[in-house]
Amino acid sequence: MEQKEKQKNSGQIPTRVLSGLMELLPAEQLVFDRMRSVIEEVYRIYGFIALDTPVIERADVLLAKAGGETEQQIYRFTKGENDLALRFDLTVPLARYVSEHANELTFPFRRSHIGKVYRGERPQKGRYREFYQCDIDIIGDGALSLMNDAEIPSVINEVFTRLNFGPFVIRISNRKLVTGLLESLEAGNQSVGIIQTIDKLEKIGENEVRGLLVALGVPDNTIRAIFDFIAISGSSEDMLAALRNLGVDNETFRKGVEELAEVIRHLGVLGVPADNYAIDLTIARGLDYYTGTVYETVLRDHPELGSICSGGRYDNLAEKYTDRKLPGVGISIGLTRLFSQLKEIGLLQFGMATPTNVLVVPLVADISVPLEIAMALREAGLPTEVYFEDVKMKNKLAYANKLGIPFVVLVGEDEIASGEFTVKNMQTGEQIACAKGDIATAVKKEIR
Amino acid sequence: MEQKEKQKNSGQIPTRVLSGLMELLPAEQLVFDRMRSVIEEVYRIYGFIALDTPVIERADVLLAKAGGETEQQIYRFTKGENDLALRFDLTVPLARYVSEHANELTFPFRRSHIGKVYRGERPQKGRYREFYQCDIDIIGDGALSLMNDAEIPSVINEVFTRLNFGPFVIRISNRKLVTGLLESLEAGNQSVGIIQTIDKLEKIGENEVRGLLVALGVPDNTIRAIFDFIAISGSSEDMLAALRNLGVDNETFRKGVEELAEVIRHLGVLGVPADNYAIDLTIARGLDYYTGTVYETVLRDHPELGSICSGGRYDNLAEKYTDRKLPGVGISIGLTRLFSQLKEIGLLQFGMATPTNVLVVPLVADISVPLEIAMALREAGLPTEVYFEDVKMKNKLAYANKLGIPFVVLVGEDEIASGEFTVKNMQTGEQIACAKGDIATAVKKEIR
Repeated sequence: MEQKEKQKNSGQIPTRVLSGLMELLPAEQLVFDRMRSVIEEVYRIYGFIALDTPVIERADVLLAKAGGETEQQIYRFTKGENDLALRFDLTVPLARYVSEHANELTFPFRRSHIGKVYRGERPQKGRYREFYQCDIDIIGDGALSLMNDAEIPSVINEVFTRLNFGPFVIRISNRKLVTGLLESLEAGNQSVGIIQTIDKLEKIGENEVRGLLVALGVPDNTIRAIFDFIAISGSSEDMLAALRNLGVDNETFRKGVEELAEVIRHLGVLGVPADNYAIDLTIARGLDYYTGTVYETVLRDHPELGSICSGGRYDNLAEKYTDRKLPGVGISIGLTRLFSQLKEIGLLQFGMATPTNVLVVPLVADISVPLEIAMALREAGLPTEVYFEDVKMKNKLAYANKLGIPFVVLVGEDEIASGEFTVKNMQTGEQIACAKGDIATAVKKEIR
Repeated sequence: MEQKEKQKNSGQIPTRVLSGLMELLPAEQLVFDRMRSVIEEVYRIYGFIALDTPVIERADVLLAKAGGETEQQIYRFTKGENDLALRFDLTVPLARYVSEHANELTFPFRRSHIGKVYRGERPQKGRYREFYQCDIDIIGDGALSLMNDAEIPSVINEVFTRLNFGPFVIRISNRKLVTGLLESLEAGNQSVGIIQTIDKLEKIGENEVRGLLVALGVPDNTIRAIFDFIAISGSSEDMLAALRNLGVDNETFRKGVEELAEVIRHLGVLGVPADNYAIDLTIARGLDYYTGTVYETVLRDHPELGSICSGGRYDNLAEKYTDRKLPGVGISIGLTRLFSQLKEIGLLQFGMATPTNVLVVPLVADISVPLEIAMALREAGLPTEVYFEDVKMKNKLAYANKLGIPFVVLVGEDEIASGEFTVKNMQTGEQIACAKGDIATAVKKEIR
């Protein structure tokens, strides 16, 4: 009988996790955590301080920035006199944090944040109500060098190179291009709607986008100019040249071209191979929040996943909370969703269900020696367990096999008497004989 | 003007974090994270799999285990049709998890969990509404060897030895002792109230406890026997002998003595120095949840902090959710509270406000070489930043100083022309000259 049914019959409380919340089994959790720690480590070597802010925020803080859909998705509740809500992203808490602590922080302020956020969405495949975001942002006080925009793709490149899920491309554009173009066409007042429409290009195709633009009342010549702009393709150099020669007579546009050129120019020395980035004029990022460089990242062999790491430059992080002008640039990786998608398409391999490297199995009543061996292995940094339960030998080895523990050390009277112990490689079946003091070295050698 | 007042005057939203929620500045966060990662690493080398469960649970799941005070403290809310709540500890989610996934898990199941929990307590010093707990539990299927109880103090010892906050003592007792004693005195029906009263001994003193017991209607001879029992002191051997000779004619009591003796007997070989543990018959742990071994941990020089790591053995983890009998043993460290207490008494030292080891400062317009140097340092695993902002030299070095970045590499025309670069140790002022390719090695040598 299924656990759920059993519980129902016995009046017990159902234990199935709520839909939209992710809960992993040990082997999955280890893979998830490996992904998380790769991201964490890359953020660290680029000098981002890993912050943590409360999951609970004052509702008015969150609602100041949330709009439309997000506002409806918010988990909101009162406790005592407090009107509270769970954060729906990590950017609003960052804005609040930087506003509150500006005098105690040093700018440019480089912070990373890996944490859970909450959105009460209608549950659907790959959408979660509780999910991890992995963000970095660099916040300037008043101004922030464009070079920070160039460094961000270097971080993205390092993360996805280390994660090793196949070839990927970081698509880069600049919001000033489309904003400037629309200004030059005197369609600046429609720019938010137009940009949000262009952003759907990959999803719904050119014809649909054209239809939507017509429906928005965008004039024909403007639509034509937009599609001429979007059609620009080729190498980065070719595209930058084409943009310069497009004949758009607008200051914002020209600034966009120069910013984009400057960002692109430094990617090579920042370790981003030419295959891993491309100018892409179709990306605009839906949010009107971005004001300059924008990024999306896609797996070349799995474009259906959509962007797995996005972000961009914004002019002012926290105008709702402070008078201080705080420009910034940042990105976010939706780790929970990414994990779920990669699992779905079979790109994740699950193995061990424990961090344990060595299982020490006592075959003697006095377990002093087995304990001593385990402590020495732990001291050498090797995750180690001692099997204490009183079951048949077969079941002890089955425990190691089920969890995927790679090494077993059997400790019986003979071993203790002779001083010679055996490390069994559970995968190859190989047995390595060694003295008590050499077990850690032997295991480490095998792991290598 | 204070940020709060400014915001009020300008109609901006206040950004101060809600009382009872902890939010740290970068330098504090680094110390907090160091503590967290010490705990994480020790849990790992003992072979505990680090799980993660949703913060949001169904309210009925949480309320099945919560009682009295906890129930009132719970953050509860509805979303759509769901009656939801935020978890108030990590044990109830564990019980639900193990019940739900029992067929997919391998027992004994060793899991660690470091995560935030929520209690809407009245805010007071050192009490938080959102706080980290760091738990480990070993869950057996039907049975669980007592040796697991002996291993737990070894984990505690390793954690607090590595954390290095001064001498500590793990106080160990067994709930069967007091339960058996009360049974033998025919006061078994009052045992919950009596145990909860005894547990207050350290806080309120002997006379108060005596008064409370009288008020509970506990007979004089029982009270006398309880105090005779509690008064037992001396070395572990002496105490075990005294317990055996106490003349308590009760099976539960005798079992408690033998379990305690067995746990104590293995602590030496499990690496716990004699100074770091003691039998303490006054600890009983308030919860009637525990049924065998119980632990508390105190800093010898700061007993006023109370127990900083507690736990024990329980007979059945999840009776509310499953028919399966799941005995276990575990402990919990209240990390947020511990951090806050240690900070309060001045035991924490705050230094750097960034993970960055090296700041590369370009003094040239073409920043290719500075970027190249930074990438090589990152590749060598050294957290590195490039200072991009266009400010005076003084301010660039001030940035390094404010954040406590230990090394600075200045890159000017001369360095690029000569190929000789200088690593400046910001603490000693020392300058190390080296070739471009040797900067990482030079820094690593200095760090050592």
